[in-house]
Amino acid sequence: MKLQQIIRENHLALLFQQGCFGLEKESQRIGIKGNIVTTPHPAIFGNRSYHPYIQTDFAESQLELITPPNAKLEDTFRWLSAIHEVVLRSLPEDEYIFPLSMPAGLPPEELIQEAQLDNPEDVKYREHLSANYGKYKQMVSGIHYNFQLSVEFVEKAFALQTEYQDLKTFQNALYMKLTNNFLRYQWILLYLLAATPTVESQYFYGKSPLAEGQLVRSLRSSPYGYVNSPDVVVNHDSLESYVESLEAQVEKGLLIAEKEFYSNVRLRGGKKARDLLESGVKYAEFRLFDLNPFAPYGITLEDAKFIHYFLLGMLWLEETSGQKEVEIGKQTLYHVALEDPRTETAFRAEGETILTQILVMLNELNASEEMKALVREKLSQFADPRKTLNGRLIKAIEQFGSYKSLGAKLAQDYKAQAFERFYALSAFDNMELSTQALFFDLIQQGINVQLLDENDQFLALQFGNHLEYVKNGNMTSHDQYISPLIMENKVVTKKVLAKAGFNVPKSVEFTTIEQAVAHYPLFEGKAVVIKPKSTNYGLGITIFQQAVKNREDFAKAIEIAFREDKEVMVEDYLIGTEYRFFVLGDETLAVLLRVPANVIGDGIHSVKELVEMKNTDPLRGDGSRTPLKKIALGEIEQLQLKEQGLTVDSIPEKDQVVQLRANSNISTGGDSIDMTDQMHESYKQLAVGIAHAMGAKVCGVDLIIQDLTQPAQPNLDSWGVIEANFNPMMMMHIFPYQGKSRRLTKAIINMLFPEIRS
Amino acid sequence: MKLQQIIRENHLALLFQQGCFGLEKESQRIGIKGNIVTTPHPAIFGNRSYHPYIQTDFAESQLELITPPNAKLEDTFRWLSAIHEVVLRSLPEDEYIFPLSMPAGLPPEELIQEAQLDNPEDVKYREHLSANYGKYKQMVSGIHYNFQLSVEFVEKAFALQTEYQDLKTFQNALYMKLTNNFLRYQWILLYLLAATPTVESQYFYGKSPLAEGQLVRSLRSSPYGYVNSPDVVVNHDSLESYVESLEAQVEKGLLIAEKEFYSNVRLRGGKKARDLLESGVKYAEFRLFDLNPFAPYGITLEDAKFIHYFLLGMLWLEETSGQKEVEIGKQTLYHVALEDPRTETAFRAEGETILTQILVMLNELNASEEMKALVREKLSQFADPRKTLNGRLIKAIEQFGSYKSLGAKLAQDYKAQAFERFYALSAFDNMELSTQALFFDLIQQGINVQLLDENDQFLALQFGNHLEYVKNGNMTSHDQYISPLIMENKVVTKKVLAKAGFNVPKSVEFTTIEQAVAHYPLFEGKAVVIKPKSTNYGLGITIFQQAVKNREDFAKAIEIAFREDKEVMVEDYLIGTEYRFFVLGDETLAVLLRVPANVIGDGIHSVKELVEMKNTDPLRGDGSRTPLKKIALGEIEQLQLKEQGLTVDSIPEKDQVVQLRANSNISTGGDSIDMTDQMHESYKQLAVGIAHAMGAKVCGVDLIIQDLTQPAQPNLDSWGVIEANFNPMMMMHIFPYQGKSRRLTKAIINMLFPEIRS
Repeated sequence: MKLQQIIRENHLALLFQQGCFGLEKESQRIGIKGNIVTTPHPAIFGNRSYHPYIQTDFAESQLELITPPNAKLEDTFRWLSAIHEVVLRSLPEDEYIFPLSMPAGLPPEELIQEAQLDNPEDVKYREHLSANYGKYKQMVSGIHYNFQLSVEFVEKAFALQTEYQDLKTFQNALYMKLTNNFLRYQWILLYLLAATPTVESQYFYGKSPLAEGQLVRSLRSSPYGYVNSPDVVVNHDSLESYVESLEAQVEKGLLIAEKEFYSNVRLRGGKKARDLLESGVKYAEFRLFDLNPFAPYGITLEDAKFIHYFLLGMLWLEETSGQKEVEIGKQTLYHVALEDPRTETAFRAEGETILTQILVMLNELNASEEMKALVREKLSQFADPRKTLNGRLIKAIEQFGSYKSLGAKLAQDYKAQAFERFYALSAFDNMELSTQALFFDLIQQGINVQLLDENDQFLALQFGNHLEYVKNGNMTSHDQYISPLIMENKVVTKKVLAKAGFNVPKSVEFTTIEQAVAHYPLFEGKAVVIKPKSTNYGLGITIFQQAVKNREDFAKAIEIAFREDKEVMVEDYLIGTEYRFFVLGDETLAVLLRVPANVIGDGIHSVKELVEMKNTDPLRGDGSRTPLKKIALGEIEQLQLKEQGLTVDSIPEKDQVVQLRANSNISTGGDSIDMTDQMHESYKQLAVGIAHAMGAKVCGVDLIIQDLTQPAQPNLDSWGVIEANFNPMMMMHIFPYQGKSRRLTKAIINMLFPEIRS
Repeated sequence: MKLQQIIRENHLALLFQQGCFGLEKESQRIGIKGNIVTTPHPAIFGNRSYHPYIQTDFAESQLELITPPNAKLEDTFRWLSAIHEVVLRSLPEDEYIFPLSMPAGLPPEELIQEAQLDNPEDVKYREHLSANYGKYKQMVSGIHYNFQLSVEFVEKAFALQTEYQDLKTFQNALYMKLTNNFLRYQWILLYLLAATPTVESQYFYGKSPLAEGQLVRSLRSSPYGYVNSPDVVVNHDSLESYVESLEAQVEKGLLIAEKEFYSNVRLRGGKKARDLLESGVKYAEFRLFDLNPFAPYGITLEDAKFIHYFLLGMLWLEETSGQKEVEIGKQTLYHVALEDPRTETAFRAEGETILTQILVMLNELNASEEMKALVREKLSQFADPRKTLNGRLIKAIEQFGSYKSLGAKLAQDYKAQAFERFYALSAFDNMELSTQALFFDLIQQGINVQLLDENDQFLALQFGNHLEYVKNGNMTSHDQYISPLIMENKVVTKKVLAKAGFNVPKSVEFTTIEQAVAHYPLFEGKAVVIKPKSTNYGLGITIFQQAVKNREDFAKAIEIAFREDKEVMVEDYLIGTEYRFFVLGDETLAVLLRVPANVIGDGIHSVKELVEMKNTDPLRGDGSRTPLKKIALGEIEQLQLKEQGLTVDSIPEKDQVVQLRANSNISTGGDSIDMTDQMHESYKQLAVGIAHAMGAKVCGVDLIIQDLTQPAQPNLDSWGVIEANFNPMMMMHIFPYQGKSRRLTKAIINMLFPEIRS
């Protein structure tokens, strides 16, 4: 296979560097001191019979976190981060994730529960493993790295070669080359990335094969780790021999199933090995990697990129000769695994040769400087074992006294980190907070998510064959096309609601200033609001709270409104307090009161200090990356203070409420206060009725209410509807300044997938 | 009742001038010569058991066209125009609407069919009328004018008076005053607006009570018209006496039903007169008016406004004394009706006094100058009978030899006028053509329409209790909220369609110029389209139809695309012809080919002349008020000509196709060609599947097809989907340049109201 030549002569370098990447990361749940817990897999993570992201490996305590495949490693890492944040924030308060591969604080064997999966076969298989290997050996964790070559690259390269007759055979040959070369040179990755130099004596049931204080490069990849009996031999000369010899091992009873073959490369493409011959290899799974405890999620992006180019290198190299070389590779791996990690490896020369060849490849591929620097850095580690991951780890273990203490400390740090911006998914912070909250719940419940367009907040959700699309957190197939169009138009909204019998402030529309002013007699002596027909954000609105008393004031307000729109409405002004009702289907799920930006005096601090104190709330920030906005002290706020006879330096009395704004928008520092339980039921039913009248399923209804404790009356003195909003905000209900949180995103999921009740 | 004082002292003048107005207009269907037809009521007008706009009065031939009530008379007239345009365009080719009240060309009595309504009671009642009055007398037509006082005015005036204890009694008193004063002074309107000076002798079965050549002011309102027997007397002293005496007439058998009481004022508010006492008078119906043959739809807006202020005058005047004055009014009416219309009326002084009082009222109300001029003009007609409607009419009849000939000529003119812009509803031309087409069909089929917001193309439709909203012709409750959001985003659309297995050109998105150019090797040698992610109208698009061959061209195209958007797509270019598929539900209803602006030579005319000739097509205009756009001869077109070696003065050979544009948009003069019947069924099914994949009910799917006669193959060489459009245009299918019209608006109605199958 003249792959180098084909790539070189046909400008395929870019395609060759493309591919698809997925990660699977195992780890143990532990208590605060680092001991593995014996609690069941948390029920909050839904059902493992379908969960695509959060699974258990061997034991109930052993989480397996799985990213979907992505064309960019960066995206795979964003998923890894998101899944971790979901898990860490959902675990019981006293549980953590152990960041090292070798287990610590192992419970008595009888207390270790095999993963209690729905399928009895799966449980039985784990019981077989317990019996054959002992439970402790199964408690080791690692990272599996899934890699698929660019399909387009394989197709193009196939079209340009003459050796193979069909695409499938060519593709299988590529993956066999990748597999065999990897198995031959995998020891290099082990030398650089191994992180299991030691283990508690309990792991060996007190009979450690290691000398007192002996350190190794990787217990996990050594013969003392998670390996098959030496009797198990699978032949790698060809895909055919691979499949046949693997089947033979199972037939002979050396393996209970094909999946018990613990090779560091698994070829993927079907349920059984034989399927690979039928439909071809789809991708390969590399299982060599120890958890990196210094990476919060077990592996760094740099190392993942390095592994990618190492894999490309295995394809780029001249072919090796099959099973013979694979055996050499395995023996080399075992040897390196048991070397003292503080010493140079016996195979340094070979390692340096291979990495140098990869550097040459990077030049030929015109790869990024960043990538070349990364390989050079790894190359340099052959001369200095202290620079390897093991080097750093051993130092840290010394410092903490044991890898268990080190692991416990890091686990606590990582959990704390995951709570820093508890209302967000850090890696997807480019999306709106409400979409992040929904995404969080979807990962937690195990619904497949595809990010169709992050800039547009567009998700595709799938559960079994049931497909749903969501935009901006709550725009879905469950709402009608016409409903938001009705709500977008204030005039139409009022007509529709009035027709359905709801209390709507009467209004008259005008298209010219002259026409509006000529109708002044209709409004004289009335409390009215004058506003542009379709602009938002309060622009151009004038309120005559008492009554409009002279034509000049009226004309001025009309003129201001016409600056914002071609049509202007003069509307009855309602007296009372405005509340936002979040309606979903037949229920009002949340009621919110928005209060203008304010601080409450304590007799000690100045207004300025009180604002600073209030702004330390982690919920407050820029208002788009946070649920609430910091209170400003700009011109408008100072004017507001002045009206109360105050300045920013005044020290308000204890319990004195200082208003800093007239408007109640959250976006100008207002407070959000949950009032769901305080609100009289009658208004909640009204809000539902209003949503129904517009055919809306998800709707934010704004009502002005005179007294929320009294039942609604059928007249405008009791209540009135101001407007209805499609795609209503959810974050202010989920993370209110005061009162109970209402996790509306879960209600959205229940609406979309009623078949999964969480 | 001190109404003048209340209005004056409380600034109620504006409210007093408000109200609600509806018109009902009867007229006979005739043949080209003016003879009344004996064909049944056209089935295209749907079912008269519910039709709100198009009914029949006494006979099958006698149309009754009904506007809904409107707060502005102008709007009532827009409806009257629209209903007429619908009727005139829907009538059989050889039928017209007779514009005069008195019937002409009456068929033998036995051939006149009473209106065949679903309810046997209704037919029976008409048979009773035939027996009692003779069929001919029932064939007279007129206009009924419905007027409701502003509800707010009545409420305010009630609150300010002390005479009446409850609102209902006060309101009833207002309407009784209006009724009685109207009946007292109605002769004034008769003098000014009557238009039935003569009738064919056949109407009197050859025994005319009139002298040879005698003309009268109004046969219709005279004792020879459509009046009750003199025995029928209903007492107007109070609403109570009115109801009781009316009931007594029916009990005595003088009337078969209350509705047989042919007063020129009917009080409305319930099924039976007695309901008025229960629930109060809601509005009054004034039945005095002859058809004005010079107004295409039977009455002019000016006269309707004059009647409004005349009615206000009847309220403004001091009270009259009930039944006694009503009797005087009736006798005066009969007298004036039989006066010679060419002479002054005997009651001139009284008429001038009343109109002068109305002029005083107009001043007090601060009414418009236009209105005052109108009343002054009417006032002047007392001195000069030739200026009355009758005056003009008599002259015209003389000119045409008979009122039948005059009527036939005007009927033809009015029908031709209604076809002038046959794709529009003239009075609602401010709305989009597609909304006008839908509105047309709704009026025709008899579905209630409310114009919620004309600027926003927002309609509310109601059939029985079934309510639907429509925006822009086809945005309804039948589509899901998420579907247009998917279609709005090209990237999401492609992902959704690719996932569902449709042939989608592959594309790669970029967010920076550098990034895109760095990926040039992926596209080298391929036919690609480079386009901004979300802009429209073809801006920023570059097509490499053959293949992109050098990096500089590619970079230039990328840069151009980035001028229009922050994200740019590089997409496979598909070879074939683009067709638009209009999908509704499970069916492709129309397929359209759009051809760039062009003319075809005849060997005689120059390009300029050919363009002028093609532009005379009534479908061509500005492209928004017409289905097609006129071809321009601007810079772009001249450049296009130059490429073909032509100028605007060149004379192309016979059948030579001259391209005037490269793009096929209708908005730049392109032709629309219906291809529905030519298109292979397999593509129609694909379009349906594509709409379904996005959850869309109404969808415009753009496919590129290699050969429309060959079945679709599952690869991009055969076909590919370019994009899908929500709210797809309908006019280009309804009025194509070439090929069959597809009345899509009817399909929309069938979708919304499956219970009515037309």
